[in-house]
Amino acid sequence: MSEPEPANPTACLIVIGNEVLSGRTQDANLRHLAVRLGALGIPLREARVIPDVPDVIVRTVNEVRAAFDHVFTTGGIGPTHDDITSECIAAAFGVPWEPHAEAWAKMAAAYQPGEFNAARQRMATMPRGARLIETTISIAPGFSIGNVHVMAGVPRVMQAQFESLAPHLGRGRPVISRAVHTRGVPEGRIAEGLAAIQARYPALDLGSYPYYRTHGNGVAIVAKGTDAAAAERAIAEVTALMRDLGGEPVAGEPAE
Amino acid sequence: MSEPEPANPTACLIVIGNEVLSGRTQDANLRHLAVRLGALGIPLREARVIPDVPDVIVRTVNEVRAAFDHVFTTGGIGPTHDDITSECIAAAFGVPWEPHAEAWAKMAAAYQPGEFNAARQRMATMPRGARLIETTISIAPGFSIGNVHVMAGVPRVMQAQFESLAPHLGRGRPVISRAVHTRGVPEGRIAEGLAAIQARYPALDLGSYPYYRTHGNGVAIVAKGTDAAAAERAIAEVTALMRDLGGEPVAGEPAE
Repeated sequence: MSEPEPANPTACLIVIGNEVLSGRTQDANLRHLAVRLGALGIPLREARVIPDVPDVIVRTVNEVRAAFDHVFTTGGIGPTHDDITSECIAAAFGVPWEPHAEAWAKMAAAYQPGEFNAARQRMATMPRGARLIETTISIAPGFSIGNVHVMAGVPRVMQAQFESLAPHLGRGRPVISRAVHTRGVPEGRIAEGLAAIQARYPALDLGSYPYYRTHGNGVAIVAKGTDAAAAERAIAEVTALMRDLGGEPVAGEPAE
Repeated sequence: MSEPEPANPTACLIVIGNEVLSGRTQDANLRHLAVRLGALGIPLREARVIPDVPDVIVRTVNEVRAAFDHVFTTGGIGPTHDDITSECIAAAFGVPWEPHAEAWAKMAAAYQPGEFNAARQRMATMPRGARLIETTISIAPGFSIGNVHVMAGVPRVMQAQFESLAPHLGRGRPVISRAVHTRGVPEGRIAEGLAAIQARYPALDLGSYPYYRTHGNGVAIVAKGTDAAAAERAIAEVTALMRDLGGEPVAGEPAE
């Protein structure tokens, strides 16, 4: 065995928005960030979806920024009355919420005369000490303060902001994944052998996911971790197990 | 003004599963439950996505079951080693995790002789006092204990379990929604007038959602609440505001 690797940094996502909790909007940011953060070695360890309620935002931000290395928020940084993320972040950090000189100057220059109104000025108002997250696709920037990164809710803006931010995040070892799937072997029959394999690879996360397709149901086993060679050995053992149980294992995940 | 209505009961969802946090799986249960719970007058007020880690599950369940009227969990009740929700719920409630006589008898009868193995027996093992959530589409039931309702992660199973459970939940006033949208009026221009309308309807939740479509970008304003007449009046005011700002408002949400 080699020396133990330092643990990867951890991430938490806070999705802020009544529209997700009401079912109006299907969140797409969690999955995108989960994949990107895994690739950067900063695995997403928790996500919370919370309403546009100041007390809840402040309490949640303070709880999770103490528990995770990075906190990402999405939503609530537009110009309307329900966009209250920025002032709540200031309250959470106990700092003034005030015009950010650089953001203010850039936004003022981007609008026609008279169009940089009070509502838009709120988007240039930030917690003192905020570091801008700038992109070419949105006039209004996101920002970071401490270990909290505040991004837009609109997916294409959030994605651009994340890529702008990514080079500045301390990375860990990328989380990789290997998979195998088969029809004809129910989870309830593979479970015992699978638990034994998991016990031999405690540093990996072995997941079992039944699938339902028109051409047949089956189960996919996915090994995730930071050690690709170990993941490949574990999946080779799962493949042999599937074959022993009468399956016809196929490498990778099943097609959608 | 009429007498104040009693407040609606509240709900929290816990999505349990590494596969959502890794980005392998796009959660579909949150949105489905959000819509159904809104219709039952039990609005979803928070959701958490957490990993298959016992301490995290136990702590999260105990935190949210004290804060919300109903807690729903999805995921982690299958037969494999990573399905640990049921035993964690028992630990959270401080009750034994033991064979549930009724679930055990039904599952034993549903499998061929010898197929009701140790892994499947775990699915009939529950916190003492669990009340079964039974459906016709899954051999293994979900269950409720206290105000916590434990359901499958597979959407079609979860949906059937929820409909089986729904008649037993105490309902509130249904949350209804009215909307109007327009092109050509950026959020930053409607924000001020919208805030004034929101201030006149404090019991409603007025949300502003920009949209991006190939045939044009715009903004949708959605009023949600339990008073349909108030929502209609508020949306009529928003419609007039949009017209004043040069928009061409259209009732309802924009097409996808």
